Amino acid sequence: MSLYIERRIGKMAMQLALLEEGDHEAESFLLAQLKHAGYQFCKGKVGSMDAHKVVAAVETAAKKTIIDGSFYRETHSLYHAILEAMQGVTRGQVQLGTVLRTVGLNFAIVRGRPYDQEREDEWVAVALYGTIGAPVRGLEHETLGLGINHI
Amino acid sequence: MSLYIERRIGKMAMQLALLEEGDHEAESFLLAQLKHAGYQFCKGKVGSMDAHKVVAAVETAAKKTIIDGSFYRETHSLYHAILEAMQGVTRGQVQLGTVLRTVGLNFAIVRGRPYDQEREDEWVAVALYGTIGAPVRGLEHETLGLGINHI
Amino acid sequence: MSLYIERRIGKMAMQLALLEEGDHEAESFLLAQLKHAGYQFCKGKVGSMDAHKVVAAVETAAKKTIIDGSFYRETHSLYHAILEAMQGVTRGQVQLGTVLRTVGLNFAIVRGRPYDQEREDEWVAVALYGTIGAPVRGLEHETLGLGINHI
Amino acid sequence: MSLYIERRIGKMAMQLALLEEGDHEAESFLLAQLKHAGYQFCKGKVGSMDAHKVVAAVETAAKKTIIDGSFYRETHSLYHAILEAMQGVTRGQVQLGTVLRTVGLNFAIVRGRPYDQEREDEWVAVALYGTIGAPVRGLEHETLGLGINHI
Amino acid sequence: MSLYIERRIGKMAMQLALLEEGDHEAESFLLAQLKHAGYQFCKGKVGSMDAHKVVAAVETAAKKTIIDGSFYRETHSLYHAILEAMQGVTRGQVQLGTVLRTVGLNFAIVRGRPYDQEREDEWVAVALYGTIGAPVRGLEHETLGLGINHI
Amino acid sequence: MSLYIERRIGKMAMQLALLEEGDHEAESFLLAQLKHAGYQFCKGKVGSMDAHKVVAAVETAAKKTIIDGSFYRETHSLYHAILEAMQGVTRGQVQLGTVLRTVGLNFAIVRGRPYDQEREDEWVAVALYGTIGAPVRGLEHETLGLGINHI
Repeated sequence: MSLYIERRIGKMAMQLALLEEGDHEAESFLLAQLKHAGYQFCKGKVGSMDAHKVVAAVETAAKKTIIDGSFYRETHSLYHAILEAMQGVTRGQVQLGTVLRTVGLNFAIVRGRPYDQEREDEWVAVALYGTIGAPVRGLEHETLGLGINHI
Repeated sequence: MSLYIERRIGKMAMQLALLEEGDHEAESFLLAQLKHAGYQFCKGKVGSMDAHKVVAAVETAAKKTIIDGSFYRETHSLYHAILEAMQGVTRGQVQLGTVLRTVGLNFAIVRGRPYDQEREDEWVAVALYGTIGAPVRGLEHETLGLGINHI
Repeated sequence: MSLYIERRIGKMAMQLALLEEGDHEAESFLLAQLKHAGYQFCKGKVGSMDAHKVVAAVETAAKKTIIDGSFYRETHSLYHAILEAMQGVTRGQVQLGTVLRTVGLNFAIVRGRPYDQEREDEWVAVALYGTIGAPVRGLEHETLGLGINHI
Repeated sequence: MSLYIERRIGKMAMQLALLEEGDHEAESFLLAQLKHAGYQFCKGKVGSMDAHKVVAAVETAAKKTIIDGSFYRETHSLYHAILEAMQGVTRGQVQLGTVLRTVGLNFAIVRGRPYDQEREDEWVAVALYGTIGAPVRGLEHETLGLGINHI
Repeated sequence: MSLYIERRIGKMAMQLALLEEGDHEAESFLLAQLKHAGYQFCKGKVGSMDAHKVVAAVETAAKKTIIDGSFYRETHSLYHAILEAMQGVTRGQVQLGTVLRTVGLNFAIVRGRPYDQEREDEWVAVALYGTIGAPVRGLEHETLGLGINHI
Repeated sequence: MSLYIERRIGKMAMQLALLEEGDHEAESFLLAQLKHAGYQFCKGKVGSMDAHKVVAAVETAAKKTIIDGSFYRETHSLYHAILEAMQGVTRGQVQLGTVLRTVGLNFAIVRGRPYDQEREDEWVAVALYGTIGAPVRGLEHETLGLGINHI
């Protein structure tokens, strides 16, 4: 019933979101780990003052490759993972433009079996990493969040 | 006034918290980056059902090396960074045992100058990574959080 | 000073919100109970991605029959009861479209004297029951909430 | 992909929690509906100033009959459903004694397949109904909450 | 239906909480205003790491002179005013020692008729002013909050 | 390391926000105290159903005289002080129009050195005082909040 150390789905999702463009060495190392764990994954970017656009961007990317969007069970699981990741990003109120701030985020979604018992089945991890700040370039600091749910 | 790409204090703090014991290669790479950025840092572990013990463990570690604990300004900055990181970990209510859950966390604290303008001065990043779950071994998933503040 | 068992204002409000259209037997039974308790009540429906439209729909219905809208004391009491009911519906953040979700709700408002002591005077109960989910038909589950306040 | 009207898991869970002891007619009607829907269910009572005792009481009851407690996937699903129900009960802060209030609650847990598509599989609903108030008999009003999750 | 400028119950409650011991001039001026408005009031002090002790201290003081504690309606009104004031003091999570912080507060409770229409009847204001910080003398800053409710 | 009694930055900010127009005696007394403490300050008014407009109004006023808006460190400090003050005003959810309520607020911003130790350096206090209520004239009560941060 314990987490496989080599299959830490949350850690891999966060590392995927943290990955610098052009850092090919780190990228191949991480992709090898994800494949070895048998994980499905995707990543993308979103910048917005609307929290619902962040939710929508992650959902849209996930539904292309990882999640079956016509299937409520999967959509429900993903939605709660996204909102939990947004709570790490916003730290208190899941609000962006309504409290005059904006985000620019990388997101990563990973799906697979992180537990050693077969019947624990699949889980999803949503990781967000980027900047949050005033709607003025440069007036911002880093932020991140992670949500994990059974799928 | 923008963040130096090579001095991303939040990313480095998170990577330090994610570091596996024994992964010497990743460790030396990260330590080299931290030193090159001129950052002070420390890390530690804490497991508890009491949120205040997590706060205390991070504060105690920080005060040994990075933060001057007799100085309110620095303590205040660190405290808010810790609480923000805890919001990512707890996703909604900064509560552990009072809602029957426990955490086992690695923490990393990094202090330095992430902005290119001299007068932006020093900031602190607190990263937490580990597991959250029922007070029963194995009934847990990963969790993480990051707080950043000017110091 | 205790609640009359046969005058449970919150329970009756919830049952009124749960009432299926066309279930005449349950309806007459509940209406008889409400009248026996001397309660004023009304019900309605609202579907929206805007939390403020849910608040407005409940307020408008209440002001037609139960609450004197020119009277701040009553409006204030009703408003807090609505917001408390919305917290049960939204479970964490009183937000709908801003986090990309929508509701379809039945609401019921009941006003009267649930306590045996005369001087405990009137209270209001607001019950909400329906579905919450993605803005796509079928991707939703049930949700409900109750707010009670002295009036 | 829509909810079966005759299998509304949240409504049935709430009605089970609202059931008066001794109201045999309503009880047999509801039990017949639950059996017809193929649902597993249980109910119980808990009174406490500690939020974690409410969580523990619901978990313990569920693990006797409905949920496999050695199975993290199921425990995780149940836990989030309980916390969501507690948010309806507490309306803002999932705290009881720490803000000087206490609850006396009936709880009901229902597990089954509320959607018409086979692959939507099983869900769990946790309903809480009772009183919340000062730790003085009679200084209390009704409160309730519902949490629903895929299992 | 508007607030009397000369009967601003929230402002007077806050001024009463802000009053320095020994500032007799400000005190007599404020007491004259409170009496002229026909307000009942009391004040006190509480220092604690337990949020429930702050609630209890304000309730106890209020019940000696201003609120009838055997009367649920009044207790309920006061309780919500206290919790709202605590939200200003704690800014996000109504928690003190559980997140390793403590408060030293003056409190003031004022009861009366702030509106010009007779039927708006009585309201209560609870004001808190003092310091919040680490459980170390001096590592603290000022904090305050106000709650207002119809009674 | 303790707060100077005669330099209570939060108290002075609140008193500045509470100041009645035309109360010249109280005004000159307070201005003398602010100057004696060496504090910079400004005040203004804002009425809105949008929380972000309250944030913007306070930021704009601050940036004219007290805060250097091209400097992220100062902007970041001010932003968190404003959000903390808004939590006192909104008591639970930093939302206005989205939950159908509006505010009319006086704001005051004070900057300076409230601690006796030189190295505690500068802090900022943001105080808000006014009314909150339904978007109908008169259906409102007083509200206030205070945020304090190191700058």
